[in-house]
Amino acid sequence: MRYQLYYWSGIQGRGEFVRLALEDAGADYIDIAREQGDDAILPFLAGERPGALPFAPPFLKAGRTVIAQTAAILLYLAPRLKLVPTGAAATLYAHQLQLTVTDLVAEVHDTHHPIASSLYYEDQRAAARQRAEDFRQQRLPKYLDYFEQALMRSDGRHALSRHSYVDLSLFQVMSGLDYAFPHAMRRLRRKRPHLCALAARVAERPRIAAYLASPRRLPFNEDGIFRHYPKLDDPR
Amino acid sequence: MRYQLYYWSGIQGRGEFVRLALEDAGADYIDIAREQGDDAILPFLAGERPGALPFAPPFLKAGRTVIAQTAAILLYLAPRLKLVPTGAAATLYAHQLQLTVTDLVAEVHDTHHPIASSLYYEDQRAAARQRAEDFRQQRLPKYLDYFEQALMRSDGRHALSRHSYVDLSLFQVMSGLDYAFPHAMRRLRRKRPHLCALAARVAERPRIAAYLASPRRLPFNEDGIFRHYPKLDDPR
Repeated sequence: MRYQLYYWSGIQGRGEFVRLALEDAGADYIDIAREQGDDAILPFLAGERPGALPFAPPFLKAGRTVIAQTAAILLYLAPRLKLVPTGAAATLYAHQLQLTVTDLVAEVHDTHHPIASSLYYEDQRAAARQRAEDFRQQRLPKYLDYFEQALMRSDGRHALSRHSYVDLSLFQVMSGLDYAFPHAMRRLRRKRPHLCALAARVAERPRIAAYLASPRRLPFNEDGIFRHYPKLDDPR
Repeated sequence: MRYQLYYWSGIQGRGEFVRLALEDAGADYIDIAREQGDDAILPFLAGERPGALPFAPPFLKAGRTVIAQTAAILLYLAPRLKLVPTGAAATLYAHQLQLTVTDLVAEVHDTHHPIASSLYYEDQRAAARQRAEDFRQQRLPKYLDYFEQALMRSDGRHALSRHSYVDLSLFQVMSGLDYAFPHAMRRLRRKRPHLCALAARVAERPRIAAYLASPRRLPFNEDGIFRHYPKLDDPR
């Protein structure tokens, strides 16, 4: 099966969670918009293609199946890529954790876009500073504590009983947070040793290390979800 | 199986999507916090109970299984309650639609809390007016068009090929939006006849009608997700 990933070509964004799973598994896939341009995405969003209607990218085409929503794509892919322990309970718990990653990612996005996705960051800076402060002080510690606790309830090294796509997603979240909020993360990392160690181990997985060193891994940038605006981070 | 639903007792909130599925199916369930108080939720959030760790309510206990995240709970319940067509493709597409409902609900919440959940609405009114205007003008029409189109790609009467939990969720969304944004919705409803007709039909399903007339259906209120603040609606 050659999977077709549809996601905007200029950012890691939500597509990166799918890309990391495909890369870690050594799956055969094509990153459509990077090959054919972002316009290849539009007919699907306009309902001009058969199959499930996506609200937004990323979506995945697997044969004639179209699947949208990052967490649903991973739910579909994980057993096929052997990236989740077998069994209904593990499948569901992994998915629940991934949905909480989804929630965190949405909150990260809203630190720089608290008013409207349709406006520039520069047009909502005052609100962004307030939202980002609450995020760093209240929400982010709560999410990090949650995932740290989830690791400790498992074997301390994985979100589930063994390596899974959830670990890849947690690596991505930690990487993005380090990029966006370096000062806040220096403070927050101290009390979450399991999460930090997991992220470091994932980065060293051979296929992930090769991917991160390749041009396929775009750098974080200020068009994506994790953006580094110094005024949204802790003061030095 | 007697299902145990854990959700804050004073609001419909995200728990309502689960409640509607249980009610429509005539399932045996207990709404724990309404019987025992909200404190019954806390040990689960503190990690003091076995099973999957919830980040937040709602969560469902089914025997020894604990499931959090509204959409994941519905993914689990739907085949058991016969609220989704059989088959992997339908299961996944229903879930994808539900996850888009989840995204819409999060954006509704942020119309009144664009800065911080930890602050009162009264402390973020200026930002709320801006965010709500963008929501009414940009985001809400886009979501409603998406679901309208999804119905038209199906049989025009259901999100999937037959009645499912997604229809129940769309009913709930339309009800909440009518409550929160009556003026905007009067304008927006005109171009989404399939969605409006679906919501009306769901309200007439015998078990749903009985539920809506019962004291178990809490009224919408200004502690929940769908809140009616006239300044966040279209001007008259």
